Amino acid sequence: MWLRTSCDLAFDISAPIPFVLMLRPRSGVHQWIAREEYMLEPSVPVFEFTDDYGNLCQRLIAPTGAFTVRTSAEVMTADHVDQAFGAPFVEIQNLPDAVLSYLLPSRYCESDRFHQMATEITAGRQLGYDQLAAIVTWLRDTIIYRPGSSDMPMSAAEVNSRRVGVCRDLSHLGIALCRSLSIPARMVVGYLYGLQPMDLHAWFEAYLGGRWYTFDATQAQLKGGYVSVGYGRDAADVAVYNQFGPAVYPTAQTVRVERIRD
Amino acid sequence: MWLRTSCDLAFDISAPIPFVLMLRPRSGVHQWIAREEYMLEPSVPVFEFTDDYGNLCQRLIAPTGAFTVRTSAEVMTADHVDQAFGAPFVEIQNLPDAVLSYLLPSRYCESDRFHQMATEITAGRQLGYDQLAAIVTWLRDTIIYRPGSSDMPMSAAEVNSRRVGVCRDLSHLGIALCRSLSIPARMVVGYLYGLQPMDLHAWFEAYLGGRWYTFDATQAQLKGGYVSVGYGRDAADVAVYNQFGPAVYPTAQTVRVERIRD
Amino acid sequence: MWLRTSCDLAFDISAPIPFVLMLRPRSGVHQWIAREEYMLEPSVPVFEFTDDYGNLCQRLIAPTGAFTVRTSAEVMTADHVDQAFGAPFVEIQNLPDAVLSYLLPSRYCESDRFHQMATEITAGRQLGYDQLAAIVTWLRDTIIYRPGSSDMPMSAAEVNSRRVGVCRDLSHLGIALCRSLSIPARMVVGYLYGLQPMDLHAWFEAYLGGRWYTFDATQAQLKGGYVSVGYGRDAADVAVYNQFGPAVYPTAQTVRVERIRD
Amino acid sequence: MWLRTSCDLAFDISAPIPFVLMLRPRSGVHQWIAREEYMLEPSVPVFEFTDDYGNLCQRLIAPTGAFTVRTSAEVMTADHVDQAFGAPFVEIQNLPDAVLSYLLPSRYCESDRFHQMATEITAGRQLGYDQLAAIVTWLRDTIIYRPGSSDMPMSAAEVNSRRVGVCRDLSHLGIALCRSLSIPARMVVGYLYGLQPMDLHAWFEAYLGGRWYTFDATQAQLKGGYVSVGYGRDAADVAVYNQFGPAVYPTAQTVRVERIRD
Repeated sequence: MWLRTSCDLAFDISAPIPFVLMLRPRSGVHQWIAREEYMLEPSVPVFEFTDDYGNLCQRLIAPTGAFTVRTSAEVMTADHVDQAFGAPFVEIQNLPDAVLSYLLPSRYCESDRFHQMATEITAGRQLGYDQLAAIVTWLRDTIIYRPGSSDMPMSAAEVNSRRVGVCRDLSHLGIALCRSLSIPARMVVGYLYGLQPMDLHAWFEAYLGGRWYTFDATQAQLKGGYVSVGYGRDAADVAVYNQFGPAVYPTAQTVRVERIRD
Repeated sequence: MWLRTSCDLAFDISAPIPFVLMLRPRSGVHQWIAREEYMLEPSVPVFEFTDDYGNLCQRLIAPTGAFTVRTSAEVMTADHVDQAFGAPFVEIQNLPDAVLSYLLPSRYCESDRFHQMATEITAGRQLGYDQLAAIVTWLRDTIIYRPGSSDMPMSAAEVNSRRVGVCRDLSHLGIALCRSLSIPARMVVGYLYGLQPMDLHAWFEAYLGGRWYTFDATQAQLKGGYVSVGYGRDAADVAVYNQFGPAVYPTAQTVRVERIRD
Repeated sequence: MWLRTSCDLAFDISAPIPFVLMLRPRSGVHQWIAREEYMLEPSVPVFEFTDDYGNLCQRLIAPTGAFTVRTSAEVMTADHVDQAFGAPFVEIQNLPDAVLSYLLPSRYCESDRFHQMATEITAGRQLGYDQLAAIVTWLRDTIIYRPGSSDMPMSAAEVNSRRVGVCRDLSHLGIALCRSLSIPARMVVGYLYGLQPMDLHAWFEAYLGGRWYTFDATQAQLKGGYVSVGYGRDAADVAVYNQFGPAVYPTAQTVRVERIRD
Repeated sequence: MWLRTSCDLAFDISAPIPFVLMLRPRSGVHQWIAREEYMLEPSVPVFEFTDDYGNLCQRLIAPTGAFTVRTSAEVMTADHVDQAFGAPFVEIQNLPDAVLSYLLPSRYCESDRFHQMATEITAGRQLGYDQLAAIVTWLRDTIIYRPGSSDMPMSAAEVNSRRVGVCRDLSHLGIALCRSLSIPARMVVGYLYGLQPMDLHAWFEAYLGGRWYTFDATQAQLKGGYVSVGYGRDAADVAVYNQFGPAVYPTAQTVRVERIRD
């Protein structure tokens, strides 16, 4: 399906402050960016670079006063997300080198502490995709998905303790459970068509049967309409904006996803 | 200045054929891409990757029949290109690791054969930018720039022998002369505002005084308005389209660069 | 000074198990590897790759039975570690792209939670190296360095709470404090000549005044004799061995560092 | 088999001169480096980096006077080189991204000029490994392999014209023929056990059926005993030493390969 996504941010800056933004989606295996727009008001010098995960990041110094970032894209993405019950666990020795780092614990995914729990959740399941299905079902049944319930990212251990979280938090717990079973897992931030309430979204992917598969415990069932903006080990890597020094919050953040060209 | 660039290609394909395209400019130190468009007709699956030089490349299989690629961008680029007479030669031991490969000879820049000639052309010049200025002056005085004069890229040795060439060919000779003096040099393809006749353009950069500087022997003087699409060692690395198997040529190629938002 | 380092590991493997080892030091700015040895008994197929941080990693499947890894190196390393009181804080906008990821929180360095504390510890200090000096002094004064006191890595928050730790743990707290002040910091594992008791060691580096500087809160003063084996965001990235599946511990681990060629 | 390889270079330097050396073999899929030695006399600061092809390169400034480089390694390498008649040609669209650049022409492999010739040489052969077998047979039958016959690398076109060359030259022609058929091919430099006369050696690899295969037109038949030191597009990328400024040649170069641990 063709989607038009947009994310507009408005800031009120009291003193010039460095930002690293991650708001430019890339064309890849899952999506094609046919049109894209990235406007800064006022216009300031920007330097774009590619981070360790292949994300396009924009560095700039936000000037004093009103500062707005408006981004939009027209994207072709899959109508249906691939599912593959039976897709096998990949033995560590057969994983590509570049995938290995997604087995390690990270800031918000303390996978070193979840092996026992993950083993119980997936008991009796065939190794691989079916373990993931069990993890996602367990997340849906156990952790309350409540948009707006947290401002700061929660780690997997915190989410597991509080039993409630936003999309980012549920992903952290899903990722930690995967990695504790030696299944590579990574976080994705981006857009989802039809998300209620509309906002930026986060979900996760696991590496099974030789490729990455999408999982999302916040939705009752897996539908199409995902647009990826950033990949990383967890929320620490994929902040839509990282700002350094005294905290600055957007005075407005508007996210839209609409279907086009039916 | 703000520019709107576009490149449209039309093909008539007799059998499905793999392409690698390089038509998506990246935001970087020199330019900011505020709007961008990349349309394929008919729409086919595309996989985008980043090559060794940081260029965004698009892989696809062109289907049988009419196939068109339409790309455009709105770009902020410098009004004036930096010039820096006196910028020094960088000693080999002080070059960044990533720059070293731009000292090596390449397909169309046989720098191993130009040391004597480059030494003569730059005789009496201060090491660094002033050598480059001498090289560019020599190219302007010696090699006839004749758009449309060659279809296939010519190597530096061929250009030096024929004394005539297109932008790509003059760049090859400029790059070979630089490298023969142990000055890193690379090829750039993209757009130039005001180019006569309008077409895709090629120029080169040399690494001096700790950064890359732009040089263009096809223009009487260095003005602003450059938009980069690809970087590489020479034309072999930065083909706007590489197609494999039997040769396929565009039935139409339309390039436009216009000024916007004055 | 010239050092001969060695690390021998012995395992008793009950079923074939995949390992990723990180035991081959690389020559770099700080050290030169003149001789090196890496022996496996029994000999098994090994695949070596370079991870995201530039470390050389060895993948293999440890076979059932006794399995030993013997590594040694002869290394030229600095007699004195550079110190630079007054070296300035580098503004975010001036940091190299590749350094930015060392500002982010990671598994064992929850830098997002230490800003207040770091500000207090460094109160009145000039921004940059002098802040680091205050952090290291505070670590030495406040956290008890007790080799063998922990088996599993402790995060900065845990170390700060328990007030005791091994070299790895003190580094985690030092790194978290740095990053909370927007100073890039990374973990290093390797060898230290004269370490008491001798073992593998961990310390950290901070990016100041345009380069990385070494810090080690476990030693009363900073002396020479460091040999680096791996770099990363924290202990999760630089395990000397990562083994997947049921835990396997070495039955013997022998580390030696001796001076040669005086 | 286990081999002990060594390469010693002696220079007589008249003024300090920057070098980039490529003399440290890496462990990889094909070989395991168990012991390694890299000695400089006199000892000078060296900075090691990894180039675009994954080779370890050593940068240094050779001091005035006698300067020697002594390297050796103990390497486990295959007894037999894999051959795979019938291994298929890989369609361009199925090649890994990282392999695509080995389809492009390069300094010494003008593959853009060999399509007609390669088609004739491989006429009637099944696409893939069998084409390569025809190319290697043709090279053996047509181009005289004469060690010591050239000092400077010859390009494929030159070799094809002169009909004689060293190992490097034959590889250039083999690579150009492969690439002209859309088969990725790359150059390898290193050691070969039993080479007559003993020296550093060069051969090439082609990507077929999803992996790289080894080819060597200088040997009557393909035996085991290869040790790789560097990979690249052609000889321009894999010089064992690159020195900048006035040419400096070794006063002595000694290469040895002997079998150990039978």
